[in-house]
Amino acid sequence: MDTHTRIERALVSALEGVSQQDCPGGLRAAVHYAVFPGGARIRPRLCLQVARACGDPDPAASTAAAVGIELLHCASLVHDDLPCFDNASLRRGKASVHRAFGEPLAVLTGDALIVLAFDVLTDAADISPRRLRTLIKTLARATGMPGGIVAGQAWECESQIDLSRYQRAKTGALFAAATAAGAAAAGAEPSQWTLLGESLGEAFQVADDIRDVADTSAQMGKDAAQDATLGRPNAALQLGLDGALNRLDDLISAAVESIPTCVGGRQLRKQIISEAARLLPPSLARPMRVVA
Amino acid sequence: MDTHTRIERALVSALEGVSQQDCPGGLRAAVHYAVFPGGARIRPRLCLQVARACGDPDPAASTAAAVGIELLHCASLVHDDLPCFDNASLRRGKASVHRAFGEPLAVLTGDALIVLAFDVLTDAADISPRRLRTLIKTLARATGMPGGIVAGQAWECESQIDLSRYQRAKTGALFAAATAAGAAAAGAEPSQWTLLGESLGEAFQVADDIRDVADTSAQMGKDAAQDATLGRPNAALQLGLDGALNRLDDLISAAVESIPTCVGGRQLRKQIISEAARLLPPSLARPMRVVA
Repeated sequence: MDTHTRIERALVSALEGVSQQDCPGGLRAAVHYAVFPGGARIRPRLCLQVARACGDPDPAASTAAAVGIELLHCASLVHDDLPCFDNASLRRGKASVHRAFGEPLAVLTGDALIVLAFDVLTDAADISPRRLRTLIKTLARATGMPGGIVAGQAWECESQIDLSRYQRAKTGALFAAATAAGAAAAGAEPSQWTLLGESLGEAFQVADDIRDVADTSAQMGKDAAQDATLGRPNAALQLGLDGALNRLDDLISAAVESIPTCVGGRQLRKQIISEAARLLPPSLARPMRVVA
Repeated sequence: MDTHTRIERALVSALEGVSQQDCPGGLRAAVHYAVFPGGARIRPRLCLQVARACGDPDPAASTAAAVGIELLHCASLVHDDLPCFDNASLRRGKASVHRAFGEPLAVLTGDALIVLAFDVLTDAADISPRRLRTLIKTLARATGMPGGIVAGQAWECESQIDLSRYQRAKTGALFAAATAAGAAAAGAEPSQWTLLGESLGEAFQVADDIRDVADTSAQMGKDAAQDATLGRPNAALQLGLDGALNRLDDLISAAVESIPTCVGGRQLRKQIISEAARLLPPSLARPMRVVA
C-alpha cells in the first residue's frame, strides 16, 4: 500500500471508530469536513518516511503515530482560523470550519480532534507499552505548553514576541514530533530525529511565508497576504524574496545532513529533496543546491 | 496526606511541569487562573475515593488519573463559557477566563489543558503499561466523540436534542470516567464502576439544575438562571422543584447500591451519602432517604 493510501485509510478508520449514530450529527460532519479532503499530509508522510527509514517493524504503531500527528494539525488549523484569531474564510480550498458549521462547532471540532489524536494511539493493539508512553509524550509536547503549537499560537497574544520560540513552537514542534514519533514507533531513539523535523518545519514555514507574499488566494486554497494584513512575522517580508529563498535552501541542506545512520537513510534523503522542491509554486522554484 | 491536599499539590506540580520560562506568559497565567482556585474538585475526589475503595496500590497512578480528570473538567468550563456558547461572565466566583484574558487565550487555555490531561498520565513513572492504555482510553472516551463532554456540548448545536444522550455525555461521561479511572488506576475492572459515576453525574446535573432555578449568582459563583435564559433543558423546570428533589434522592440511592464488593466499600458509601447532602444549599436540603 502506498503512503498516501495508508494515511487516508487510517484517517477514515480513526474517524469511523468514533462517529457512530450516538454522536451529534453536526459534530460528526464538522470533524469529517476538517480532516477530508486533506492538504498535502506533509507531517504524517514525514512520520511514515522516518519510520520506514528505521525499518518500520510495527506498521500499526507508525500508522497510529502518523494519524495522531495529522489530527493535531487539523485541530490547530480549525482553531487558528477562528474569528478571534485569523478569522480565515478559506482553508484547503473551501470555507473554513467556522464559516461552514458556525463557531461553536468549530471550537468543539478542534477539541474532539485533539482528544482523538491521543485516543488512536491506544488502538494500535500491538504497540509496545514503552513506545505508547513515548508517543503520547511526543505528541503532548508538540501540542501543549510550554513549546507546542498551542503555545506557538499563544505567542501571538503577547505584546513582545520571542520570534524564534514563536516559530519553533508554532510550526517546528509538530514537524519535530512527526520525525520523533516515526522513529519512536519503529523503536529508534526519537531524540536523534528531532533536528530533521525542526529544520523541515522551519523550511516549511519559510516556504509558506514566501507563498503568502507571492501567491494569490486561488493558488494557495486559503487567504493570501495574511501576514502583512495581520502584522505577523514573515521571512520573505523580513529578508526579501531572494534572502528567503536562500534561507530555504540552507534549511533543506541542514535537514538532509541531520539524518542519522539508518537502513533507509539514502532513500529518505532523496524523498526529502524531492518533496522540498515542491514546497514552492513552479514560478518561484529554483534548482536545489543540495544533492542526495 | 488528605485528599484535598493530594489533589491540589498534584495539580500545582502538573502545571509547574509545563510552565517554564519558555512558555508565553499570557497562556501560563490563563491556564493557572483556570485551574486555581478550584471548585469542589468533585470529580478528582471521586476518582481517588474509588481508587482507595479498591485498595489504591499505586497512588501515583490514581493521583495522575484524578489530575487528568480535573484538567479535562477545567478545559470544558473554559470552552463552555466562551461567547459562542454560554457567554458566561462569572465562573467559580471570579471573571470567566475569556473575560479576564480575552477570547484567544481562553480557546488556547482549553486546548492546553486537554493536552496536559493526557500528558500527566505518562508522568506517573511506575504506572503499569496496561493501566496507562486503559486510563488514556477512559479519559478520551469521556471527552471526545461520540459520547464525551465535547459531544455533549455539541448536542446544544442540534435542532433536535436527544436529551438523555445530551445529559449522559455533557455531565455523566466525566463522572463515569472518574470512577472508572479510579478503579483502573488501582488495578480493578473499570466497567464495574461506571454505573456509580453515571448515577452521581446525573445527580450532580439535577442538583445543578435545582440550584440554577433556585439560587442567585452570588451563591453559585457563576451566572444563575442560565438554563431558562438560554432555553436549555433543566430537570427542575421540567419536573418542578419537588419532582427534581425526589429524582436526586433516587439517583443517590442508585449510586450507593451500584458499588461493587471491594475492601473499602462501606467507607465509600458513607462518603458518597455525606457529599451528596452538600450538593444543595442548606435552604433546599432535606434528610436523605438513603442510609449507608
